[in-house]
Amino acid sequence: VTYKLYYWPSIPGRGEYVRLALEEAGAEYEDVAREPGGVKLLQALLASGSPRPLAPPVLVAGELVIAQTALILEWLAPRLGLVQDGERERLAAAQHQLTIADLVDEAHDTHHPIDPMKYYDEQKEPARLRAAAFTSHRVPKYLGFFERVLGEREFLAGDALTYVDLSMFQVLEGLGYAFPKAFARTIANCPGLRGLRDRVATRPRIAAYLASDRRIAFNEKGIFRHYPELEA
Amino acid sequence: VTYKLYYWPSIPGRGEYVRLALEEAGAEYEDVAREPGGVKLLQALLASGSPRPLAPPVLVAGELVIAQTALILEWLAPRLGLVQDGERERLAAAQHQLTIADLVDEAHDTHHPIDPMKYYDEQKEPARLRAAAFTSHRVPKYLGFFERVLGEREFLAGDALTYVDLSMFQVLEGLGYAFPKAFARTIANCPGLRGLRDRVATRPRIAAYLASDRRIAFNEKGIFRHYPELEA
Repeated sequence: VTYKLYYWPSIPGRGEYVRLALEEAGAEYEDVAREPGGVKLLQALLASGSPRPLAPPVLVAGELVIAQTALILEWLAPRLGLVQDGERERLAAAQHQLTIADLVDEAHDTHHPIDPMKYYDEQKEPARLRAAAFTSHRVPKYLGFFERVLGEREFLAGDALTYVDLSMFQVLEGLGYAFPKAFARTIANCPGLRGLRDRVATRPRIAAYLASDRRIAFNEKGIFRHYPELEA
Repeated sequence: VTYKLYYWPSIPGRGEYVRLALEEAGAEYEDVAREPGGVKLLQALLASGSPRPLAPPVLVAGELVIAQTALILEWLAPRLGLVQDGERERLAAAQHQLTIADLVDEAHDTHHPIDPMKYYDEQKEPARLRAAAFTSHRVPKYLGFFERVLGEREFLAGDALTYVDLSMFQVLEGLGYAFPKAFARTIANCPGLRGLRDRVATRPRIAAYLASDRRIAFNEKGIFRHYPELEA
């Protein structure tokens, strides 16, 4: 089966968590909306997919249409060898992925604390306050939590690499991009997560992917945005 | 098996979605933190559960410990008869539940747009702005979406009642509590969801549950809070 991923073509966003899993597994996939005319196909899928997706990413696999990042990954992982067998292991991975999704939502709201439909420029002052709260205690809370989950182990959910590790890599990269100063302070206390990030970055397929033009750079239309004034 | 639910005892919050499913199914469950000394047991579970939960609700079923509301429900539903058999049906329900979770997160942030660790009183002005955006176009977007998902059918995910319908009931009740004026305007355009809410409310076990002292009323420590100034 060739998987079809539908996601906005100009940002890593929530699509990137799915991409990292597909890339690590060496799976065949089409990144539909990045091909000519692909955004129209994405819009058509949002308008008529069944079950109807509210927003991308959406994965199409044969007859199945699956939206919501964490659910896509939960479904894909056993097929890609990115979760261990066993109910406990699958549930642990899914649980941690949902907690990562909560952190990603909070990262988004640092630049859109009032209204996701308005521009950042229209909500800069509350954004400054929310970003201060996010970097001063929310990020330490989440990363401290995952540091404890990791403990002395190499991977977050079980004895082998899972999609959760790939997603955590992306979150760490994103936080380092958006809030370099605050992130440096927090990650200094998280040796386990630093090791995890390096282990993921140097996996052969991930390293090749990161060096390719398939990898979309963080930018100020995405979820992790670097606005220096939000770190002042 | 007797399910053990761990959730803060004084608010409906995210625990309520799990309670509604257990109640509709007539399942045996302990609402642990509502029993004497139960909050300490909840705190102990947060400190030492495996996989470690970041926050409640947490469901304990035999050896399994499951956190994250949508995951708890996805796991429980086949055991409670609250989702149809078949991969498509299970995925559709899980997807919609995650979209409901997104709406619930946004409802929470109407009173905590800056910092979830500070009091509402410390963020009233941005709360007013966020609540205005939420009621004027976010709620219509989400409810319009689910109205289209429902279409002419009776239930949101398939041909029979699922946990998604129960959760949507709770969201509609919560929105009506928190933002009665704006909700009345929006729900006027959603005849399908109005019908769904009535169908859920009048199911015998749900009606009995709602009339019991097991049902926790919405209040201003929870997710759906009624602050009249946020509707001004």
